[in-house]
Parts: sequence; C-alpha cells; structure tokens
Amino acid sequence: MLGIKSASGAILVDEDGKEYIDGIASWYTAMYGHCNPIITKRVAKQMEQLDQVVFSGFTHEPAVALSEALMEVLPYNQEKLFFSDNGSTATEIGIKMALQYFFNKGEERTVMLAFEEGFHGDTFGAMSVSGLSAYNGPFEKHFIQVERIPVPTEETIDKILIDLEKRLQKKDIAGFIYEPLVQGAAAMKIHKAEHLCRILRILKLYGIITIADEVMTGFGKTGTCFASDQVTVKPDILCLSKALTAGLVPMAVTSCTKKIYDAFYQDEIVKGFFHGHTYTANPLACTAALAALELLRTKEIQAGIKRIMNDHQKFDEIVKKHPNVASTRQQGIIYAIDLKTKTDRYGTLRDQLFSHFMDQGVFLRPLGNTIYILPPYVISESQLQKVYTSILSALDIV
Amino acid sequence: MLGIKSASGAILVDEDGKEYIDGIASWYTAMYGHCNPIITKRVAKQMEQLDQVVFSGFTHEPAVALSEALMEVLPYNQEKLFFSDNGSTATEIGIKMALQYFFNKGEERTVMLAFEEGFHGDTFGAMSVSGLSAYNGPFEKHFIQVERIPVPTEETIDKILIDLEKRLQKKDIAGFIYEPLVQGAAAMKIHKAEHLCRILRILKLYGIITIADEVMTGFGKTGTCFASDQVTVKPDILCLSKALTAGLVPMAVTSCTKKIYDAFYQDEIVKGFFHGHTYTANPLACTAALAALELLRTKEIQAGIKRIMNDHQKFDEIVKKHPNVASTRQQGIIYAIDLKTKTDRYGTLRDQLFSHFMDQGVFLRPLGNTIYILPPYVISESQLQKVYTSILSALDIV
Repeated sequence: MLGIKSASGAILVDEDGKEYIDGIASWYTAMYGHCNPIITKRVAKQMEQLDQVVFSGFTHEPAVALSEALMEVLPYNQEKLFFSDNGSTATEIGIKMALQYFFNKGEERTVMLAFEEGFHGDTFGAMSVSGLSAYNGPFEKHFIQVERIPVPTEETIDKILIDLEKRLQKKDIAGFIYEPLVQGAAAMKIHKAEHLCRILRILKLYGIITIADEVMTGFGKTGTCFASDQVTVKPDILCLSKALTAGLVPMAVTSCTKKIYDAFYQDEIVKGFFHGHTYTANPLACTAALAALELLRTKEIQAGIKRIMNDHQKFDEIVKKHPNVASTRQQGIIYAIDLKTKTDRYGTLRDQLFSHFMDQGVFLRPLGNTIYILPPYVISESQLQKVYTSILSALDIV
Repeated sequence: MLGIKSASGAILVDEDGKEYIDGIASWYTAMYGHCNPIITKRVAKQMEQLDQVVFSGFTHEPAVALSEALMEVLPYNQEKLFFSDNGSTATEIGIKMALQYFFNKGEERTVMLAFEEGFHGDTFGAMSVSGLSAYNGPFEKHFIQVERIPVPTEETIDKILIDLEKRLQKKDIAGFIYEPLVQGAAAMKIHKAEHLCRILRILKLYGIITIADEVMTGFGKTGTCFASDQVTVKPDILCLSKALTAGLVPMAVTSCTKKIYDAFYQDEIVKGFFHGHTYTANPLACTAALAALELLRTKEIQAGIKRIMNDHQKFDEIVKKHPNVASTRQQGIIYAIDLKTKTDRYGTLRDQLFSHFMDQGVFLRPLGNTIYILPPYVISESQLQKVYTSILSALDIV
C-alpha cells in the first residue's frame, strides 16, 4: 500500500515526495483537478454556515441551486431528482423505481434486463444487475431476477433485436439498466449510439423503463455533458455520481421523467417511494457539485476537453500501428488500448504494467490486457504527453 | 418544505431567521454541534492537501489515523476495518461477509436472521433484513432469505430462546443482524443487554455470524461508546455510520474480527471480499471522523453526555405521571415517550405534534405515537429545558 500525502491538479504526491500524474482522475472523479481552490473555497464557506440537516420536510439553498443547475443540463425529458450517496445507491433507486412503477400500476413485471459485462455497483440490487459477476458467486442465489443481452456490435445488432423482441412477448420485464456508450468496469468497452438507440426503441414500445447509469460517463467524459446526449432515445431514469461532486465527497443523484414521478405521487402512502439515507442532499456535497457543474460549463474546461480529445486522436495514429496492440478505441476523453497479450483481469501482466507506470510517475490502472486513460480536464499538455510516453514504453516491454 | 439556512451548535435557523433547537441532532449525526469549528477547520485544511484518492493499492494518513483511533475504542475482538459510504452499505457489507464466510468454507448457509421491527437501510440487502416492512411491499419478492425473531422482553425471552434453538437445528442460518439495545427507526424501542446476551450466546454456539448494526447507537448515545460495550457477548461484525463523521459528510465503517477476516484472506481470488465504492475512505470524511472521535473522548463532551442523561432522568420523573403518557424509556441520551393515543406511523397526530414543536422552535420528529429526544452532546441546559417544556405542552394537547 502506497501512502499518498497530497494532491493538486492532475498530480498525486506520495509520502517520499514522488509525483504521479493521475491518469484516471482518481476513478473518474477529480475531473477539475485535485483540491481545486474554486471548489474547496466554496465548500469551506458552506461548512461554516450549514453542514448538514435532515432532507425530509426541510430543504436548503445548496440543494435547490444544484437541482436547478442540473435541470439545465440533463436530457430534456428528466424532470425530478432524487438524491443519495453513491453510484450503488443511485442505481438501486433506479431499479426500485422501475419495479415499483409496475407494482403501483398493478402490473406483474418483476424481471430486470441488463447488458452482459455491465457494472452498476456492489450492493445486492446493484450487484444483481451487474454482469461482471466473476466475483459475485457467493451472492448469486440472493439476487433479484435479471436477464442479460449482449452489448451490440455491427455484426450482432440485428440478431440481438430479433431475440429481444421475442423475449419481450412475456411482458414480465420492468426495466433495462445500461451504461450508455462506454462500459467502465468492463475495461472501457464502447458501443455505438445508433445500436443502443435501436434497442431502446424496442424496449420503449413494450413499455419498459430505461435506466441510464451515467455514474462513470457523466459530466463531459464522452465528449458531451452526458453520454445520453448522443443517444436519440432518452432514458426514463438517469443515475449520476463520481464526477458529480468533483472528487470531494460522495453523493449521487437519480433523475426521472414526470411519467415515473407521477406513478408514485399518490394519496395511498404505500405507493410512495421510500428511500432515504441520513446524509441525503448533504449541503457540502451539493455545494461541491454546483461549483463543479459551473466549472464544467466554462470555456476553459470545455477547451481542455477538446484538447484532450484531439491529443488522444493524434496519439492513436501512432499507437494503433504498434505490433503489440490488438485494437484501440476512444470516446471523448476516454481512450483505451487492448494488448495482443491475453491475461487475467487481475493477472501478473496487469501488475507489471501498473508498476511500470508508477515507476515512471504515472498512475494508470490497467484492467486485464486493456490500458486506458481518463485524465482530469485540467491535465497539462506536457503531463498528457508524459502519460502517452509511458504507455509507448510499456508497449515495448509486454 | 422549510428552507434551512444555517446551523450552529444545537441550533438550526430557517430562511426567515427563526431558530429551532435540533432535538434529534439531524438524525443522530451532529452530536458535537453543527459546524463545530474544531472539526470544520481540520476538514478545510485537509481539503487543501488531499481531497480524494483511489483507496485500492493506495492509502493515506487520515484513513490510517482514523483506523488506529477506532481500534482503540471498538470492542476488543474487532480487528479489521472496511470503509464504505453510508449505513445501508455498512450493513450490506456485514451481510455479504456473513454469507460469503460460509460460502468460502463450503458450508451451505444462506438464511439471514433479524429482529422483527429492525431497520438496517434502504438498498436491497439492507431492506431485506429490515422488519419494518410496511413500505417494502413492492420489493419483497426480490429479497434475500430472512427469518425474524421477536425483540426480547422479560415475559418473552424464555420462549424466544426455546424457539430459536429449535430453528437453529436446520443449520442454514449464516448471520444475525441486530441493533443492540435501541432500535432507532422502530421508535427508539429498548431491550435489555442481558436478554440480547442470551440470544447471542446461543447463536455463537451454532456458529452464526453476529452483526451489530450500531449506525444509530454508535459513539456515545447509549451512555457508552458503543451499545455493544454494555453487552457481554461481542459481535463478530460491527456497522458504523451517522455520528461517525459528526454530521459533515457521509461515510461508514464495517469492522470485523480476525476470524471473519481470515476466511477471506486466501490465495484463491474468488474467495476474496469484493466490495468497493469510489469514495471509499474519502480523506475529508476520515478527517471529520477522527476529529469527532477525539472530541468524543474529551472531558467536556463526556460531561455533556452525563448531564443530558441526568436531566432526562429528572424530566422522566415528571413526564411519566402525565395522564396522556402510556410509558417512557431511556438509554443514555436517548429518551422516548409513548402516548396513550394510538396513531399511524405517518398519521395526523404525528403531523400535529411536529407542527406544535416547530412552532415552539423545537425540531423533533415524532414516530407514530412516540415522541423522542436524541440531542447533540453540546446542547445547553436552557436549550434542553426548552425541549422538555415543549414536550410537556404537547402532552396537554394530545
């Protein structure tokens, strides 16, 4: 275990003073740089005024201001927000909304649909819909009922649609949860918006609630504010966390359409939606999130995103010709390389690559035989070049 | 929805400047007072040094220092800590540990045991073990397998033990989750340590993993640091959140014994314990928690706890004689009154009482026909008297 002592911008510093470029923005959170004073000053001020209050019967300015700001950027059909604490709770809330939607209507639909290799969190509901189940073994008997469909490719999309439509005749599926465009934990696997759209269209025809898990993809990483912005068919429910609070503290938001909200807003209390964590809509987290969202919309950050996207493209021209590279892919500021060498998800090669990068002062976390970059938007030109250089030298040793 | 603008010590202030005494410490979190400068200054400083870093392969001083401090106060048999984000994830981790413990040993034990009327959170695993299930209806079909036992009383304990021992012969129960001494969401229901002990002893005989959910009871509220300190038989696993971070930001800890830890620490990766949230062991939350724990151990806070306990006792002498009071109970700084009037959990009387208190500048959240107080340790003598006075006036109108 390496002790990290401080962080600033795109740099992590260990206890010996050695610096590492944070090539994955500390799991896709610190997109505006670590300890960004624009954010931390506002949180420090909020901390002196109102730290925490029950978010039931009460509200507060940070939650109201953040909600208004989120409504401006969320897909047009999203109308209500539900706060919680992390990505797992955000997706659990989405799943609960989908299941209870039909329960409230008196329609028996109890199966969830999800992509193979999707990842949605570590609590029981979130684990259930996660296809990356190599380590879910001890809990599989306890999962909610889930069926999976393959992630579409040019070759498979037609068959997927035919099989899906057949499966939907049973009318027992309540909701479909998906990571739009990029599946993070599956090692940044990318699918086409057009293919996703065709799947979502059929699901909508059958009245299935669609849940976009944008915990990883949200807030600019795919080149647009949300990945769903690039998908014509909008989700009924959308899950946000990670970069939402810019790497300060945990918080999550699950948004939904008016149609979903109305299914719960009734006189019968048993049809209400009951889910509340103690720190729901924590004022400090809301303040960090509002500051982050304002930063995201600045010219500087938007220019940073474009610059990284362009640099990735130029780097790709070089990398894809390397004899040890099987394939490359990019979506926004997310860039991934699959090596020809086969390896286990947690195998020796992965550890060797990790050590190689750390030796060179670069923090990257290869997943199996995939090396990926997801840098903070504030990474400098020279820092990004150093990441590229260390990847090139790694390619020579695998 | 009332807008709360600021908070300080035991006081919440709304947008019109009206003050309310926070009689439940904002759901049992802000025990050291709101915006306590001793805590906020340290968090503000940490925020300038290291906001967040991946807690996998890396560690940091706030997590190390907090872990050491927690080890000093946790029951002697607790040896390892697992960080997460809130009470629901803390109990999910406890449940997962219990189930996987037997999975790893190759023993088929897939049923969880819990108290009737227990509450352990809102995610699927946590909901499953929560007996307060009036609003779990839409999800019951999706729950993990759980059986319930009644909370023991002088009259029922012997029968509970006999029934329990019969039930245990099937050897299919993996774990037992319980709120020790006080069940929070059940309206501060109290049971005797001695009775709980007798149950835990039998469970241990049958090798069942015991999980103390101290999310509500932890950090001084029951008169000792943890409720489990008053129970001779210590739990295998202990869940903490809420007051852990003193009402600043969400975080949770699940601790366990060496026996539990060793069941996962093996060469086979599939037997490892996989559960990780992005903000796990967030440095700001760890800093708040360490400052809080240091405060808890000061003479001033310990004196505050004793003073509140004494004041409750004196108040009880008056209250219990009131003709509208059915019964009263106290555990540490937690004090509850059951009214003779019967009412629904979310009925009209509850709303009337809430409004009565708010009009008088006191924030209390009655649960059904129970009025309870769980004040911050820093509440002043006159503030606490004002809470008592408002309760006495409420008793006259019910």
